[in-house]
Amino acid sequence: MATYRLDLAYDGSNFHGYARQPDLRTVQGELEAALAPWTGNVGTYVAGRTDRGVHATEQVVSFACPSLDTDRVVRSLNAQLAPEIAVHAIREMDPQFHARFSATGRAYRYRIHNAPVHDPFRASVAWNLDVPLDSDAMDASVRPLVGEHDFSAFCRRQGGRSMVRRVLWVGWRRTQEDIELSIGALSFCHQMVRSIVAVSVEVGRGRLAVEDVASILNSRDRATAKGTAPARGLTLVAVSYGDEELPRPAWIPET
Amino acid sequence: MATYRLDLAYDGSNFHGYARQPDLRTVQGELEAALAPWTGNVGTYVAGRTDRGVHATEQVVSFACPSLDTDRVVRSLNAQLAPEIAVHAIREMDPQFHARFSATGRAYRYRIHNAPVHDPFRASVAWNLDVPLDSDAMDASVRPLVGEHDFSAFCRRQGGRSMVRRVLWVGWRRTQEDIELSIGALSFCHQMVRSIVAVSVEVGRGRLAVEDVASILNSRDRATAKGTAPARGLTLVAVSYGDEELPRPAWIPET
Repeated sequence: MATYRLDLAYDGSNFHGYARQPDLRTVQGELEAALAPWTGNVGTYVAGRTDRGVHATEQVVSFACPSLDTDRVVRSLNAQLAPEIAVHAIREMDPQFHARFSATGRAYRYRIHNAPVHDPFRASVAWNLDVPLDSDAMDASVRPLVGEHDFSAFCRRQGGRSMVRRVLWVGWRRTQEDIELSIGALSFCHQMVRSIVAVSVEVGRGRLAVEDVASILNSRDRATAKGTAPARGLTLVAVSYGDEELPRPAWIPET
Repeated sequence: MATYRLDLAYDGSNFHGYARQPDLRTVQGELEAALAPWTGNVGTYVAGRTDRGVHATEQVVSFACPSLDTDRVVRSLNAQLAPEIAVHAIREMDPQFHARFSATGRAYRYRIHNAPVHDPFRASVAWNLDVPLDSDAMDASVRPLVGEHDFSAFCRRQGGRSMVRRVLWVGWRRTQEDIELSIGALSFCHQMVRSIVAVSVEVGRGRLAVEDVASILNSRDRATAKGTAPARGLTLVAVSYGDEELPRPAWIPET
C-alpha cells in the first residue's frame, strides 16, 4: 500500500458541499467515484471540508491504495470529472501523511462585490452588496482576531469541542469594486470565516463600531455575532504541511 | 413615446442565446418579461445577437415606450432578473436611435485557457486547450484580416447576403496560461469570430502555416476553414455609435 496526496480545485456552486452525502452531488462523491477504477473503494481524507457553495483553489486529499501511475491517473481524472473540478497533482507521500491531521495551516479568501449593480460573471464567486462599505473600518475591526482566542462567538457549536483557534493573519482590502478578506489559521471551526465576514460587513455599513468585533470575540457568545455571510464568496486558497509557510498575501502586514 | 437605450451584461452559459425563442430560456425573453410591467409588450432591438453560450460585458438594446423613470426601472430589473444578467443603465435617446442599425462598431474577445489542467472557475468563459499553442504565430496569422474583405470562408452562409466586412483590428496575445483574441469591426457575419479562432488554433498547434489564414480568406470558400471554436470563450465587449471610437485594447498595435 502507498499513501497519496491529491491536490484539487473546484467551483462549489453546484455541489452540496465537499463531504459525501447519499443521493446528493458532492465533490468527495464525484472524486471517489472517478478514483475507484484505479484505487478500489478507498476512504479519502480532506484538509478542509467546505460547505455547500464554498469553493477551493487549493484543496488537499489523502488516501492509501496499491501503487499508482500518478500521471496517468491525473489525466484520467481530469478527463472524467465535471469541468467544475480540476485535479492538479497526485504524489506519493510518507505513510504517516494525512490530509487533515498533518495540515499545519489553512488560508481562506472571501470576496464581496460592492457595487450598485451585480457582476454576472462573478455571481457564484462573490457576495454582491450594493450598500457602500467602509473597507478600512472592516480591516481595522478584524485585527484583534489575530492570535489564539476562543472563537465561540463566531462558530457553530459542535458538541463540547474547543473553539480555541490560532489566527495567523486576517485583513480586508478594497480593489475598486471588490473587497476581499484574507485569513490564515492553523485550523478553523465551523462557519468561522463566514461569521467574521458577517460582522465585518456590519462594521463596513456603520451598524457596528470598529471596536465591536473585539467585544463580540470576548463575549464568546454566538448570539452576539451577526449570522453568516453567503457561502458563494468563500474560497479555500491554501493548505500548509509540516514546516511549510502558509502563503500570506503581500498586502497583509506582518504582525 | 420615447426611445430608450438599455446597456446590459450577461453570462450566456445557461441561455439558449440572446434572441427570443419559444419555450427556451433566452436573454431577450427574460429581459422583455422583466420590462413588460414598465413598458408593456414592446419590441426590443439588440446591437449584437449572441449565440447560445456566448457572453456579453457590454450589450446594447433599444426600444420605444411611454416615458419611464429610468433609475427606478434599472433597480427593478436588477432585483428581478437572474444573477446572470445585469442592467447597467437605461437612457433616453434621439427617436432615430436603433441599437442594431445605429451601431458603428462591435468588439469581441475570445479566451483560450491553454494549460494541461482546466480551470474550474473559468470553465464557462474560456475554451480549455491542453495542447501547447504558439500565440505569436496565431497573432501573425490573423493580421491580414484587417481591412475590408469578403469573409465568406469564415461565415455561415445566410441566403445571398454579402459577407463583406470591415475589420478594424485583430490580434492574439498570451498572458501566462491565457490566450486572448481581440477583434473590432463595423459588424460581423454569423460565426465569423469563432471561425477565425478555429483556424488560429490550427496555426497555433502547427497544423496550418501562418500564411494559410490569408489563403483561406482569399479562397472565400467556407469548406477551407476549420469549423468553429466553442461558444463559451466568446464575449461581446463593446459597441460604438455615431462618432464614438470603439475601444481598442492598448496591446493591439495601430494599423
